[in-house]
Amino acid sequence: ASRAFKKFMPLFDRVLVERFAPELKTKGGIMIPEKALGKVLDATIVAVGPGARNETGTVVPLTVAVGERVLLPEYGGTKVEIEDKEYFLFRDTDILGKWES
Amino acid sequence: ASRAFKKFMPLFDRVLVERFAPELKTKGGIMIPEKALGKVLDATIVAVGPGARNETGTVVPLTVAVGERVLLPEYGGTKVEIEDKEYFLFRDTDILGKWES
Amino acid sequence: ASRAFKKFMPLFDRVLVERFAPELKTKGGIMIPEKALGKVLDATIVAVGPGARNETGTVVPLTVAVGERVLLPEYGGTKVEIEDKEYFLFRDTDILGKWES
Amino acid sequence: ASRAFKKFMPLFDRVLVERFAPELKTKGGIMIPEKALGKVLDATIVAVGPGARNETGTVVPLTVAVGERVLLPEYGGTKVEIEDKEYFLFRDTDILGKWES
Amino acid sequence: ASRAFKKFMPLFDRVLVERFAPELKTKGGIMIPEKALGKVLDATIVAVGPGARNETGTVVPLTVAVGERVLLPEYGGTKVEIEDKEYFLFRDTDILGKWES
Amino acid sequence: ASRAFKKFMPLFDRVLVERFAPELKTKGGIMIPEKALGKVLDATIVAVGPGARNETGTVVPLTVAVGERVLLPEYGGTKVEIEDKEYFLFRDTDILGKWES
Amino acid sequence: ASRAFKKFMPLFDRVLVERFAPELKTKGGIMIPEKALGKVLDATIVAVGPGARNETGTVVPLTVAVGERVLLPEYGGTKVEIEDKEYFLFRDTDILGKWES
Repeated sequence: ASRAFKKFMPLFDRVLVERFAPELKTKGGIMIPEKALGKVLDATIVAVGPGARNETGTVVPLTVAVGERVLLPEYGGTKVEIEDKEYFLFRDTDILGKWES
Repeated sequence: ASRAFKKFMPLFDRVLVERFAPELKTKGGIMIPEKALGKVLDATIVAVGPGARNETGTVVPLTVAVGERVLLPEYGGTKVEIEDKEYFLFRDTDILGKWES
Repeated sequence: ASRAFKKFMPLFDRVLVERFAPELKTKGGIMIPEKALGKVLDATIVAVGPGARNETGTVVPLTVAVGERVLLPEYGGTKVEIEDKEYFLFRDTDILGKWES
Repeated sequence: ASRAFKKFMPLFDRVLVERFAPELKTKGGIMIPEKALGKVLDATIVAVGPGARNETGTVVPLTVAVGERVLLPEYGGTKVEIEDKEYFLFRDTDILGKWES
Repeated sequence: ASRAFKKFMPLFDRVLVERFAPELKTKGGIMIPEKALGKVLDATIVAVGPGARNETGTVVPLTVAVGERVLLPEYGGTKVEIEDKEYFLFRDTDILGKWES
Repeated sequence: ASRAFKKFMPLFDRVLVERFAPELKTKGGIMIPEKALGKVLDATIVAVGPGARNETGTVVPLTVAVGERVLLPEYGGTKVEIEDKEYFLFRDTDILGKWES
Repeated sequence: ASRAFKKFMPLFDRVLVERFAPELKTKGGIMIPEKALGKVLDATIVAVGPGARNETGTVVPLTVAVGERVLLPEYGGTKVEIEDKEYFLFRDTDILGKWES
């Protein structure tokens, strides 16, 4: 992650992710038309918040860390532009799963 | 479950399931037309998350384990494609029941 | 309950019930037309889950047991087919009452 | 209450009530037409459940007892037929008040 | 409050109130037409329940007492007829305020 | 605040406020037409309730006191007439902020 | 922040922010028409409340401080005019993230 991310810190249990670049070609090498490119659900965690407090007041640690590859839900997330690059903010609890590195 | 699943880990109280293949023939051996094939509600658990925290902050263990045969609810679940195979993510609390192995 | 039920275990606070056979004749012996047969609300418990956890994390025991005769609510319940027989899954908290054996 | 009620036990914080018979005549002795008979909101408790658990898991005792005369809310309640007699199930918390015996 | 009220006891955190008689004349002595009489929001407490339990199971005492003059909210409340007189049931938490006697 | 307010006591976490008189002229001295007078959001606290109980049963003290100048939200609040003067009841938690005296 | 803000104190977990002035020109120096100016989501914290109480009654400290640069969500926030300048009130939990100074 470039220096910019160390500067930006999501709050509470939010995590900042960068989606993978979409596959422009099918396995067989045929170009996929722009419109047909579904939303990319694979992404990398670029910044994480400190975690949110539960009802008893203790901060709950997050389950994902910077650099991990995660699977995003189809809906939700907030688009955020930082230094002209497109990122998305999700809640830790909305991330579906991660790939053990 | 193939190596791929050990790599992918659902988060919180989510479990990854693979539905049984649909019965293509009736008991009497007559082919069932594609359209008439209802959703298959029998499935196998292929990966489980670590569990979710309850209000007091302790992680609640899951009630199903990898390899168990379970009964899925008719609705809900998130379709997920991993290495071109179709799986579904459910919450542990949504699984209706399981067959004692 | 046949062996099949011992094998199938509802999860959390769900209970599996089998509705009584509908009365086909009125007290006076007149056949009741199929359409007029209301839903049968009397049933027997055939399998019970382990119970669900409350907020403090302890498992809450169920109030009905296998073999007991219960009164079902008019609505709710999930139809489940096990070995071609029709059962219903209810939450323990939705069962209206039971007859002391 | 007849023997039948001792056999039927409402569950959790439900109570079984039997509504008073409607007044068929006005104070002045004039017959009230069937349609004009409003719902009878006075009733007697004929069976009570064991009570429901609160969040900390302890069972909360009910505030009404068998034999007490209570005032029902206008709406809510579940009609239940036991041995061809009409009763109603209410939650303890829905009973508006009671007459000190 | 007449003997009737000592007999009727609201349950949980409900309180029974009797609205003041509406002012039939303006300050200047002009009769107010029936239709123009807004709902009277001033009332007296005639009976109180024992209070409701909070989540930890302890009974929460009420903030109003029999005989106090209170200000009712414009909406809500359940009309109740006791011995042909009109009263209203409110939750203690819905009473807006009271006049120090 | 006149004697009347000491007599009226809001209940729970309600506070009684009196809105400032609207500015009838613009800074430049031009009369503002009645219709154009927006709702006045500046007000003074004239009476406060004892506070409400939280889930563990302890009374939570209020954050505003009689005499303080506060900023009201645009919506919400209950109009209340006491001795022909117009006041408003708000919940302590709805007051947006206050001016340090 | 001018003196005025030290005087105004948001209540509970509200924070007062001042949005950055919108960029009137594109990177290439072309004037952006008024209508095309999206909402500015970058802002500075000018005043913070004392924090809100959680369920157990303890006050939860805020995660942002006066002077910090924050990223606002696209929706929500309450417009507030103080001494003819435009500010916005947000809940601490709604602020998406902040830039480490």
